[in-house]
Amino acid sequence: MGGSSFGHQFRVTTFGESHGAGIGVVVDGCPPRLAIGVEEIQHDLDRRRPGQSRLTTQRQEGDVAEVLAGLFEGVTLGTPIAILIRNTDAVPGAYEAMKDLFRPSHADYTTESKYGLRDWRGGGRASARETAARVAAGAVARKLLRAAAGVEVLAWVRQVHEIDAEIDAGGVTEEAVEANPVRCPDRERASAMAAAIEEARRHGDSLGGVVECVARNVPPGLGEPVFDKLEADLAYGLMSLPASKGFEIGSGFAGTRLTGSAHNDAFVTGPDGRPRTLTNRSGGVQGGISNGEDVVVRVAFKPTATIAQAQQTVDRAGAEVSLEAKGRHDPCVLPRAVPLVEAMVCLVLADHWLRQRAVDVLP
Amino acid sequence: MGGSSFGHQFRVTTFGESHGAGIGVVVDGCPPRLAIGVEEIQHDLDRRRPGQSRLTTQRQEGDVAEVLAGLFEGVTLGTPIAILIRNTDAVPGAYEAMKDLFRPSHADYTTESKYGLRDWRGGGRASARETAARVAAGAVARKLLRAAAGVEVLAWVRQVHEIDAEIDAGGVTEEAVEANPVRCPDRERASAMAAAIEEARRHGDSLGGVVECVARNVPPGLGEPVFDKLEADLAYGLMSLPASKGFEIGSGFAGTRLTGSAHNDAFVTGPDGRPRTLTNRSGGVQGGISNGEDVVVRVAFKPTATIAQAQQTVDRAGAEVSLEAKGRHDPCVLPRAVPLVEAMVCLVLADHWLRQRAVDVLP
Amino acid sequence: MGGSSFGHQFRVTTFGESHGAGIGVVVDGCPPRLAIGVEEIQHDLDRRRPGQSRLTTQRQEGDVAEVLAGLFEGVTLGTPIAILIRNTDAVPGAYEAMKDLFRPSHADYTTESKYGLRDWRGGGRASARETAARVAAGAVARKLLRAAAGVEVLAWVRQVHEIDAEIDAGGVTEEAVEANPVRCPDRERASAMAAAIEEARRHGDSLGGVVECVARNVPPGLGEPVFDKLEADLAYGLMSLPASKGFEIGSGFAGTRLTGSAHNDAFVTGPDGRPRTLTNRSGGVQGGISNGEDVVVRVAFKPTATIAQAQQTVDRAGAEVSLEAKGRHDPCVLPRAVPLVEAMVCLVLADHWLRQRAVDVLP
Amino acid sequence: MGGSSFGHQFRVTTFGESHGAGIGVVVDGCPPRLAIGVEEIQHDLDRRRPGQSRLTTQRQEGDVAEVLAGLFEGVTLGTPIAILIRNTDAVPGAYEAMKDLFRPSHADYTTESKYGLRDWRGGGRASARETAARVAAGAVARKLLRAAAGVEVLAWVRQVHEIDAEIDAGGVTEEAVEANPVRCPDRERASAMAAAIEEARRHGDSLGGVVECVARNVPPGLGEPVFDKLEADLAYGLMSLPASKGFEIGSGFAGTRLTGSAHNDAFVTGPDGRPRTLTNRSGGVQGGISNGEDVVVRVAFKPTATIAQAQQTVDRAGAEVSLEAKGRHDPCVLPRAVPLVEAMVCLVLADHWLRQRAVDVLP
Repeated sequence: MGGSSFGHQFRVTTFGESHGAGIGVVVDGCPPRLAIGVEEIQHDLDRRRPGQSRLTTQRQEGDVAEVLAGLFEGVTLGTPIAILIRNTDAVPGAYEAMKDLFRPSHADYTTESKYGLRDWRGGGRASARETAARVAAGAVARKLLRAAAGVEVLAWVRQVHEIDAEIDAGGVTEEAVEANPVRCPDRERASAMAAAIEEARRHGDSLGGVVECVARNVPPGLGEPVFDKLEADLAYGLMSLPASKGFEIGSGFAGTRLTGSAHNDAFVTGPDGRPRTLTNRSGGVQGGISNGEDVVVRVAFKPTATIAQAQQTVDRAGAEVSLEAKGRHDPCVLPRAVPLVEAMVCLVLADHWLRQRAVDVLP
Repeated sequence: MGGSSFGHQFRVTTFGESHGAGIGVVVDGCPPRLAIGVEEIQHDLDRRRPGQSRLTTQRQEGDVAEVLAGLFEGVTLGTPIAILIRNTDAVPGAYEAMKDLFRPSHADYTTESKYGLRDWRGGGRASARETAARVAAGAVARKLLRAAAGVEVLAWVRQVHEIDAEIDAGGVTEEAVEANPVRCPDRERASAMAAAIEEARRHGDSLGGVVECVARNVPPGLGEPVFDKLEADLAYGLMSLPASKGFEIGSGFAGTRLTGSAHNDAFVTGPDGRPRTLTNRSGGVQGGISNGEDVVVRVAFKPTATIAQAQQTVDRAGAEVSLEAKGRHDPCVLPRAVPLVEAMVCLVLADHWLRQRAVDVLP
Repeated sequence: MGGSSFGHQFRVTTFGESHGAGIGVVVDGCPPRLAIGVEEIQHDLDRRRPGQSRLTTQRQEGDVAEVLAGLFEGVTLGTPIAILIRNTDAVPGAYEAMKDLFRPSHADYTTESKYGLRDWRGGGRASARETAARVAAGAVARKLLRAAAGVEVLAWVRQVHEIDAEIDAGGVTEEAVEANPVRCPDRERASAMAAAIEEARRHGDSLGGVVECVARNVPPGLGEPVFDKLEADLAYGLMSLPASKGFEIGSGFAGTRLTGSAHNDAFVTGPDGRPRTLTNRSGGVQGGISNGEDVVVRVAFKPTATIAQAQQTVDRAGAEVSLEAKGRHDPCVLPRAVPLVEAMVCLVLADHWLRQRAVDVLP
Repeated sequence: MGGSSFGHQFRVTTFGESHGAGIGVVVDGCPPRLAIGVEEIQHDLDRRRPGQSRLTTQRQEGDVAEVLAGLFEGVTLGTPIAILIRNTDAVPGAYEAMKDLFRPSHADYTTESKYGLRDWRGGGRASARETAARVAAGAVARKLLRAAAGVEVLAWVRQVHEIDAEIDAGGVTEEAVEANPVRCPDRERASAMAAAIEEARRHGDSLGGVVECVARNVPPGLGEPVFDKLEADLAYGLMSLPASKGFEIGSGFAGTRLTGSAHNDAFVTGPDGRPRTLTNRSGGVQGGISNGEDVVVRVAFKPTATIAQAQQTVDRAGAEVSLEAKGRHDPCVLPRAVPLVEAMVCLVLADHWLRQRAVDVLP
C-alpha cells in the first residue's frame, strides 16, 4: 500500500531510487499471446531519455530495458512482465553538498516528513527517473491497445511558458510531433518555444507548459460510471506525473465560460449508424464512459524546480541558507513529458479496456 | 471492480440508482471509537440537498440518512458503517418520453454502450443523486479528520461563467461561504453570480464555473511519492464528480506561465522551528506529499447538460430528433457542488491520514 | 480495508451487526443483463434460515431480502447490487447479563482487544448472522455461473462428530441433500447424525463436523498460478466462515499418506478430445488452475461455542466467573453451514470466471 | 490482477519463470527505518535452497539475492523493496522432450488451458522456484515482526507419509528443527522420516506430509472479523504454496470430533491481568482475531508430482503416451517447505500487524 501500483486489471508496480541499483516495473495482468519485443519497449524509453537535444538535460542516462520475466519466444506468457533498467550515470557526489538541505519546491522536506529519512543521492524515489519504468510499462499497454482494439495514443507540447501553439488535435501526426525537439506540431511556435527554453537555460531559469494528448479509436463503453470514471482515472494517472499541477478533459476550464446550450455536444447518426457528436467538448467521455470520439486531455507542468539561480531555503537544523544548484538539469520538462503522458494514458486505457472485457460477458 | 469503491484504508462503496429504492454507502475501515451522530451526517446532506434556493433545482429530495450499521451508543464500532438514503421524490413518468433518446452530453448513450441497457427512469447510476452517498461518507471522514488531526476542509464557488470572484483562500470562513445561496465568499461577485444564474434559468440555459477548496492543518507527510500522490488522489476523487472537466492544485494552469525562479516556494523556518514556505504555489503538496501548508485545489464544472432549450439528438433507432427537456433542474450546479468537493477532499485526506498511520510505526 | 470485502472482479462488501438495523451486502462487478429475481435470492436465504428444524436454532429470524439497487425489470444493470435484510427477531435483553463477560471460544475478548469496544447485544459483527448477506450475494454468483458457464455448486454434510457418511461426490443430487434436515445424502448416516445432534442438545452440548462441496462443469483455466490459486481463494473464502477450523481440496490431509505414484492423476483423452484425469485426487485444480474435473473441497466446523453447560471464564475486570448460556442456539451448525459453503464457493468461482474473461482476450 | 500480489498493507508482488532471466519480488508498504541487511534475506533463502541434503533435490540453484531498491545505509527507505534472484542452474534442454506432454498432477495442462501457451522450459511460472521470491519477502516481514512486535515464527515437519512425529508446539526451538535435514524436532521420528524418504527416492517415488507452524507473541487484535479473518488469510497464503492440499488451525479436523464442552477454551486471568485460555484449541484466533495465544497452523503437502516411474499421460495432440521423468527432483518437499510456510505466515502477520496500526488510532 505504498502507492507504487497503478491500475486494477492491467496493474503495474514500479520500484527504484534514482541512485540505487536500478529502477523497474512489474506488469501483472497483461493478457497472454501479445506479440511484443524488447525493442518496442526500448523505443519508447529512448523517446523519454535525457540528452536528446540541447533543450533537455545533458545527462546521458542510457536507459536499457532488460526483460526479466513474462515474455517467451516473442509473446507475453500472461504472467507478470518484469523490466529492469539499471542506473548507470549516477554521480551521487554531486548531491552530497545538498544532503542536509531542503531544495525549494522539491520533495526533500516532504520525504523526510513522511519517512524520517531519505536517500539524498538525488531525488531518490521522488526522482523523475522513476518515470522510465512507467514508460516501459506504457509501451506494453500501447501494444495491447493497438493489437486488440486499434487504439492509438499521441501527445505533444501545446504550450511553453507564454507561447501557445495552434493545434487541431484531430489532425496531429506522430511525424509532426517528432519533427522538432520541442515535440510541438505547430512548427512556428515550436521554434519560438525552443528559443524561449534556450533563453531560460542561459539565465539559469526554467519554464513550464502544457502537454495535450489524444487517444483515437477508443471504443465506446470504457470507464465506470461512479468513482472510476475514465476522466477520473486519467486525472489520477496524469496528476501522478512529477511536476504536474493541473488536468483537464475536453473543454476543461475554458468550458466553464460557455453556457450549456453552447457547450452540449449534439448527437447525430454517424456513417456507420452509431451515434456521433457534432462537437467534442466532452473530450470523448460522457458520464465517465467513453463515447467513441477522440479522448482529449491536457496536463499542466510547472517550471522545473531545479534552477541554477541562488535560492533561499533551510537545512535540517532549521538554519536559513542559500542554495545554488549545480549539475545538469532540464530547463523545461515539456518535451520529455510527452512520452510520459502517452504512457499514463495507455496504462489507463489498457486497464479499462480489460476491465470492460470482464463486464461484457452475457448475451 | 465496477468502480463504485473509493479509497484504500478508509474505503467507501456507494450504490443506488436515482429512481430505485434508494442510494447508500458502506464505509469500511473507519477506526473505532469515533464519536459521531447521524445528525452530523444529516447536516452535510442538507447542505447538498436540492431546493435550498431558487438558484438550484426545485426538486425536494428530502434526503434522510438512516444508519444501518457501524454505530453503537454514539460511536463507531470499527465495523462497516452503512448509510441508506431512500428515494422519495422519484417521478419516473417524467422520463418516460425520453427513454429511447440519448440526451446530449449526458450518460445515456455511453451507459447503453457499456451495459447494453439502462435504467431510463432518470440518470440511473449516472445521476448526480449518487453524490448524496458520497456526502454522507464524507461527513464521517470529516469528523475523523477533525477529531484525530484537527484538519478542516472548506470549499466555495470561485467562478460562475464569466464572473471571477476575488478570494484569498487563507482567510475564507464557513460563515462567509454560507452567507449567500451561491456559496461565494466574495459578496459582491456572489450577487452578480446569482443574477447570472437567474438569467440563465429564464433562458432555459445553464452555467458552469469553478469551485475552490482548502484543507487546513494537514500534517506534513500525507500522500505517497509515486502513483498515489496526494494531488493525484485528489484529482481522481474530484474528477469523479459529475460534470467536472478540470482540476488544478496550487498554481495550476496559471503557474505554467511563470519561470521556475518565480514559481518556487522558498523555505523559511517557521515559529515552531518547522520548515514553512513563503509562498504556496505548490498548493500544500510537494512530490506528492503534504508539506504542512494549506492544500488548495480547484475543480472546473461544465454548465449543466440538462437545459430547457430544444436540442438536436438521436434516438436508439438512429433517427435524428429534437429534445426539449422538461422537469426541474439546476441551471448551475456550482452552489451544490461545494459540499461534494468538500466530501471528496475529506475522503482522500482521511484515507491518506490512516495510510500514514500504518507506515509511521517504527522508532 | 476493514476486511469486509471479498473478491476482485465480482466483489462483495457486507455490513451489519446482529442487533443493529440490519445486515446487507453490495455486489460490485456483476455483469449486466443477468436475469435474476429477488425470489431466487430469497430461496437461498431460506435454506440458511434458522428454525428450519429441531436440529438447528429455534430462533425465527425470518430473513427477508430487499433489493435496494442494481436490478431493473428483472435483470442486472451492471451497477452495484445492494441487498438489505432487516433485523427483526433481535432480543438484546438476552445478552445484557453477558455484556461484561468474555464467552469462551467466542469473539468477545478478541473484538474488544481489537476495537476497544463491542456491540454486546449478540455477536455484533462477529455474529454468524452476517453470513445471510453472503448467502444473498452467493445467490447472484450462483445465477451468473449457471447462466454464463453451466457451473453447478452443491454441498452437503459429510461428517457430524464421530459419524462419517459414505458419499460419492460425483453422484450427489440436490434432492438427496435436501431430503433430510441434516443435509446429508447418506440417509442412514443422516439419521444417526440427527440422533447425535438431538442427544447433544439434550445435554446442553454441541457437535462439529465436516461439509463437503462439489462444483461441476467448471471450465479449465480458472485460477491464477501464484497467490490467487483457485484452492487458495477457496480456502480463504471458506476459512472466513464462522467456526471453520480446516480446509482441504481433493485428497487433502489423507493424500499425504499416499506415495506420488499412487497419488498422481493420470491423464487420458476424454470423449470430446480434451485431456481428462482417471482419478481426481487433485480435486479439480492443478497448479492453482481448474482442469475441468469436479472441484471438490471440504471444510471442518468446530462444535458450536455456545453451549448450555456452565463454563469457566473471566469478565472485563479480570474476575473469574461461571457462565451458563441461555437462549436458543444451534447444537450443530453443520446443516445450516451447507448453504454458506455453497455461497462462498459460488463467490470464488464467479470472481475467477470473470477474471479469466479479462485475460483470454487475444486471438 | 494476475494474482501475483499478496497482502494489502505489506504488499508483495512476485515475478519470474523458472528458466527465464530470474525471479524476484517487490515489497510495497514496508515501513521506513527498519534495519535489515541483504545477509538476513540471504539467510532465509539458504534455508530454502535445494541441494542442502540427500533428502532434497540435488540441483544447485545457488539463489543469490540482489537488493535493487528500497534499502539505504542498512535500513528500509519506506519505498518499494525490490529483490532479484537470477536463474543460473537452468538446463532447459532437460525439458525439451516433455514440451508437448502434460505431466500428471502438474500445471502443464492447466497452464495451457488458461493462457493458450506456456514456457515449457521447466514449470515456468508454476515452478516452485517462484517461492524463493516469497522467502526473500518473508525475511523482510520476519524482521519487521521481530523488531516491531517481538513476534517469532517457527515451522517444522510434523508428518512424512505414515510417520507422525510427537511434538509439543509450545516447546519447539529453531535449533531442534535445524538439528536434522528433515527439519522435524522429534529426533527419533526424524530418522524414520529420513529413511522413508531415502527409500522413496530409491523407488523413483515420492512422499507427502504435514508442516506445522507456530507464531509466538502475536499481540491480541490482529485479523478482521469477517472475510479477512486471520485464519482465512493464513489459509489463503498457505494454500497458495505449491503442492499444498489442506490447511487447519488449532484443533482443525480432529476438533470436529469433540463436543463443544470439550472443545471450548476456558478463559482465566493471566499473570499480567490479561485474559488467557487454559487450552488452545482455537489456535490463537477467535472470531478471526488473534487472542494473544500461540497461533498454530498445519499444512498438508501432497507427494511430489515428479517421480521417476513411468506414468500414463497424453500429449498436446491427444495421443496417450508414457512419461518417465528424468532430472533431479525432490522425493519429498517437506523439509524445504518449512521455510516457505514460515515465509507465508510472516507475510500474513506483518500485513495484519500494519493494518491494525491504521485502525487503532483514536484515544
